[in-house]
Amino acid sequence: MNLILLFKDDFITNSQITRIQGRRLEHVLNVHKASIGDNLCVGLLNDKIGAGKVLNLDNNALELDVTLDRDPPAATPAALILAMPRPRVLKRILSHTCAMGIKKIVLINSYRVEKSFWKSPLLKEENLNKYLMLGLEQARDTILPEVIIKPLFKPFVEDELPAIIKDTHPYVAHPYAPQNNPRAIETPATIAIGPEGGFTTYEVAKLEESGFTSINLGQRILPVETAVPFLVSKLI
Amino acid sequence: MNLILLFKDDFITNSQITRIQGRRLEHVLNVHKASIGDNLCVGLLNDKIGAGKVLNLDNNALELDVTLDRDPPAATPAALILAMPRPRVLKRILSHTCAMGIKKIVLINSYRVEKSFWKSPLLKEENLNKYLMLGLEQARDTILPEVIIKPLFKPFVEDELPAIIKDTHPYVAHPYAPQNNPRAIETPATIAIGPEGGFTTYEVAKLEESGFTSINLGQRILPVETAVPFLVSKLI
Repeated sequence: MNLILLFKDDFITNSQITRIQGRRLEHVLNVHKASIGDNLCVGLLNDKIGAGKVLNLDNNALELDVTLDRDPPAATPAALILAMPRPRVLKRILSHTCAMGIKKIVLINSYRVEKSFWKSPLLKEENLNKYLMLGLEQARDTILPEVIIKPLFKPFVEDELPAIIKDTHPYVAHPYAPQNNPRAIETPATIAIGPEGGFTTYEVAKLEESGFTSINLGQRILPVETAVPFLVSKLI
Repeated sequence: MNLILLFKDDFITNSQITRIQGRRLEHVLNVHKASIGDNLCVGLLNDKIGAGKVLNLDNNALELDVTLDRDPPAATPAALILAMPRPRVLKRILSHTCAMGIKKIVLINSYRVEKSFWKSPLLKEENLNKYLMLGLEQARDTILPEVIIKPLFKPFVEDELPAIIKDTHPYVAHPYAPQNNPRAIETPATIAIGPEGGFTTYEVAKLEESGFTSINLGQRILPVETAVPFLVSKLI
């Protein structure tokens, strides 16, 4: 937790004082080991970042005098379209993708996605937000990404994808595609990554019809969790 | 499992026939759902890759007629020096780093590494190899990386690091370092990544004295699992 994420509800009415309990209090007590008078890095959800001066800290609550005076780091100019991963992997991908500054994550279906994944309670908004917020705290950011859930491949690609990729360069990671992962492109990117086992030939063809360029990430087939930062890092 | 990793012991004496049980059999039955006559991608540990034709497959064993005729993919020209991470995170880092083709991983101490991490049973060779082999199977590789364990920072940096970084360009990831992550360097790299919370100022200074260049990965503090592929991808 490199930044303590604050919510409007944390503030005592008409003041710049917050009173925090629970997970964030535990972390400040046990990891930060802060003392009264220390300044901690804080940020208000979907708003500015700044410092919180510790007014009081005990096992009951952390009280901070908060000054919010800076913008959070710039968003990374890339959107991610991901074949729905195994939920326990998705938890980490949400946090890590959010830490990288990606602000749009679309979860789509693919022939090789296990149907049971779509029934995961992780897909409820409050659960998604929990893992996204871990990413914000890691990267000292406050802007919550948008997660769009699309469990039908064909209607999504035909009807909704054109609006999502508008004004971006869309790439689909596909082992053995002849084109290498491009470097340092100037325009915003949309990146599509398939499931374990890859998109089917039909799915890649549908994405290519929609304007996607197939690119390889080298000779090796990377796990999805590694493929995302690998691809994003080369592109930005 | 994009490649079935074979061991010399799998082969019936003086033949090219292997008989496989356990985890690999389960995977071929339940995920590959292979049939007699199918060709599966196989590789012999620290040796060539090729095809295994299914001669027999049932709940007892998988028998393959094996032809090994190709070299595994080229190694990635980078070594990784990592402050010992939390063991459950290290499991994934071992698999994912190995999938990326890195062949040398050095685990070192740092002030912010929890002492208990060094007592993890994961550090036993057979346990490390288990996670490395998952990475080989993922990336269709056979060459097991070397993992070097160095629980004392100063003697390691002073006495052993010079030989490890010889003929490479050594970088240490350090938030707020003025130099950005370089791209597509021509020489092999050595990459040092600190613990959650970062290397101390003293530790960074010791690495810089040894010839390391401090580089930032952008304005965001990435989790170690994401920082590794992010950094490797830009460099290679």
